[in-house]
Amino acid sequence: MRTRKFPAFLEAENQAEAAGKRGEIPVGAALVDSRTGNVLAAFGNRTEELSDPTAHAEMLCLREGARKAESPRLPFCDLYVTLEPCAMCAAAISFARIRRLVFGAYDPKGGGVEHGPRLFHQPTCHHRPEVTGGIDEEICKALLTAFFAARREETL
Amino acid sequence: MRTRKFPAFLEAENQAEAAGKRGEIPVGAALVDSRTGNVLAAFGNRTEELSDPTAHAEMLCLREGARKAESPRLPFCDLYVTLEPCAMCAAAISFARIRRLVFGAYDPKGGGVEHGPRLFHQPTCHHRPEVTGGIDEEICKALLTAFFAARREETL
Repeated sequence: MRTRKFPAFLEAENQAEAAGKRGEIPVGAALVDSRTGNVLAAFGNRTEELSDPTAHAEMLCLREGARKAESPRLPFCDLYVTLEPCAMCAAAISFARIRRLVFGAYDPKGGGVEHGPRLFHQPTCHHRPEVTGGIDEEICKALLTAFFAARREETL
Repeated sequence: MRTRKFPAFLEAENQAEAAGKRGEIPVGAALVDSRTGNVLAAFGNRTEELSDPTAHAEMLCLREGARKAESPRLPFCDLYVTLEPCAMCAAAISFARIRRLVFGAYDPKGGGVEHGPRLFHQPTCHHRPEVTGGIDEEICKALLTAFFAARREETL
């Protein structure tokens, strides 16, 4: 599936690419106010740059969006991410009451939405966003594959 | 079990109590450098104050500790929390490579360590801290029970 339906997804892809260039795992996200279509926040991963184990692209978007909205809950927002969110980010998405989650590549190893703990399917999960996965899957996956291939080469 | 064995747990309890007084869910945490015994960070929940859905006590401790250590990984640290961490915090604890997690009350509704997704038991979890639960369980639980009882009374 291509991103024509989701223009904000391109912003997430740009953020992923920029993160990779900074030496971070190339994952990007964009948070959109669904009422206006405005991008409230867009980030790539920054765990190394900020020395912050929680600084995934999604978390930075949620925090920035909530700060701007002056509320920890963002039920009017959609989140676009290039990779299936991990359990940490999925739980944060639920706490923030995000309306819709759109993600790119599936992540069988680290994902927490369609894999592993499948957070939104837990009976104790109070808010489940609408979820669409597999958007621009090949493009998002290629960014990650290239990044890890280059890193392996560096360490050989 | 009483906290004599874990002096840092008292700091977590103080933080929980202070959080409740600020109108936040009374959960507190303290991050300790296990090599020196020094408390690197201590926080209560601040989601409402900071308008940040990710500002749980544990997350604030991990972020502050990692910032001080200038590394997103803290394998020399132990985390003390008054309540069983949720899935978001459990995943962050794993990312941060925390050595040992000590928590107070069990949380059948929102916990992600011994309940719900049981994050550290997922086959995709790469780092499992040593876990001790049930420390000062009644004290930690009483703080939460009193907080929610008072809130119910306010809304009646």
